[in-house]
Amino acid sequence: MQQPQETSRRTLEVCFSPKLFADHITRDPFIVVLVDVLRATTSICAAFEQGVKTIIPVATLDEAKAWKAKGYLVASEQDGKKLDFADFGNSAFQFTRKSVGGKTLVYCTTNGTRALMMVPPVNTVAIGAFINITALTRWLVKENQHVVILCSGWKNKFCIEDSLFAGALTEKLLATGHFETHCDSAAAAVDLWKTAEQDLFAYLQKAAHLHRLRRLGLDDVVPYTFTPDTTSVIPVFDGKEIIDKAKTKL
Amino acid sequence: MQQPQETSRRTLEVCFSPKLFADHITRDPFIVVLVDVLRATTSICAAFEQGVKTIIPVATLDEAKAWKAKGYLVASEQDGKKLDFADFGNSAFQFTRKSVGGKTLVYCTTNGTRALMMVPPVNTVAIGAFINITALTRWLVKENQHVVILCSGWKNKFCIEDSLFAGALTEKLLATGHFETHCDSAAAAVDLWKTAEQDLFAYLQKAAHLHRLRRLGLDDVVPYTFTPDTTSVIPVFDGKEIIDKAKTKL
Repeated sequence: MQQPQETSRRTLEVCFSPKLFADHITRDPFIVVLVDVLRATTSICAAFEQGVKTIIPVATLDEAKAWKAKGYLVASEQDGKKLDFADFGNSAFQFTRKSVGGKTLVYCTTNGTRALMMVPPVNTVAIGAFINITALTRWLVKENQHVVILCSGWKNKFCIEDSLFAGALTEKLLATGHFETHCDSAAAAVDLWKTAEQDLFAYLQKAAHLHRLRRLGLDDVVPYTFTPDTTSVIPVFDGKEIIDKAKTKL
Repeated sequence: MQQPQETSRRTLEVCFSPKLFADHITRDPFIVVLVDVLRATTSICAAFEQGVKTIIPVATLDEAKAWKAKGYLVASEQDGKKLDFADFGNSAFQFTRKSVGGKTLVYCTTNGTRALMMVPPVNTVAIGAFINITALTRWLVKENQHVVILCSGWKNKFCIEDSLFAGALTEKLLATGHFETHCDSAAAAVDLWKTAEQDLFAYLQKAAHLHRLRRLGLDDVVPYTFTPDTTSVIPVFDGKEIIDKAKTKL
């Protein structure tokens, strides 16, 4: 790949919590990569891989219930557990071609969709996960905008698993030569990823959320979540709904 | 040192930005360790090492000017630079026994004192820096309370240098056997510190704030800042002023 001129490089930042996002907003347009690998953004990628048509993210349970009453399929969880009124929780394994193929799904989660609501409508938001990391990298290079990787965290706190993904994606984007970063969070995320990738599943034992999911019997998705490139979907939120940009270009 | 029972261990958390601090507040009492190694907390330790009697931290320039008008010595900077009305900026090297010994100093900085104001008055706040890290560790063990290490960051963003100190202090406190942690930020800070300490001054080149100080010609304090244990002061804020707890016990 030809190396672009230094001056044409796009900037790359990492934001470790939705509460810190306002301080990453700049005048220049930028794409936000939303990250909640355990589990919303991985599950959203999985739903598109299974052929869901569109996903409507909502921030509150009341909104999710209102959509359900209108007859929509709804995925909704609180603190990791599927809520009774919903059709799905937040696990990637629930979505099958039969259950979601060609349909619209309404999505409400503890961290992921609430983080999404922090982003101003002017910004394009791409959904990032290990399972679509290479497709996402290629798409971000092609879009040629500045990028902020927004980690959903756990109830506004820094979390290890999203930070590891931020580090892995930062490393991939910098390696293309199309991006540069002067962001301390991005540098730290890359170093955490370099430490963790040597024995990723052992490292993940440090993540409090993994233990939370294990206590709920919901950690069956962990190997799937951290296996890269099982899909090439590029779910993108336009302010109203999420569609698969990979599909719309075929 | 005798190992305490598991059940008697105190918890330890790291908070990467003042904006995230509210989510670390719990019902149980805890001590806050305030960190702004480049430069407020290192400079405060240096001022106590030079015999300052008390430090009054203030959050705004107007307050700092009002204290100056009353005849107090004032340290005040904005974005790293000393302000004209002030006696001192934010460099550890400005404080001498002659200039501050036995006196009260009013202190206002971009990040450090503003982070201090985020802490509820009920919490004791200790001032942490590499230059007092071992004295601080011993004092925290003796105080036997839960601990939250609060990084001041740069204008609310995560910063590398404060996170490295948080990792170094976490590692030391865990090694005493008196603390335990289930905090993702603490685990990440320790791993960053382990990566960085292999060649600390090379690693610090990743810190955006170091380059900011260098552009201002204010990076002369860097070797002093990252040299551990040159003082055994334990500056502690009681809600009104900062005094040296090491001195008050002699």
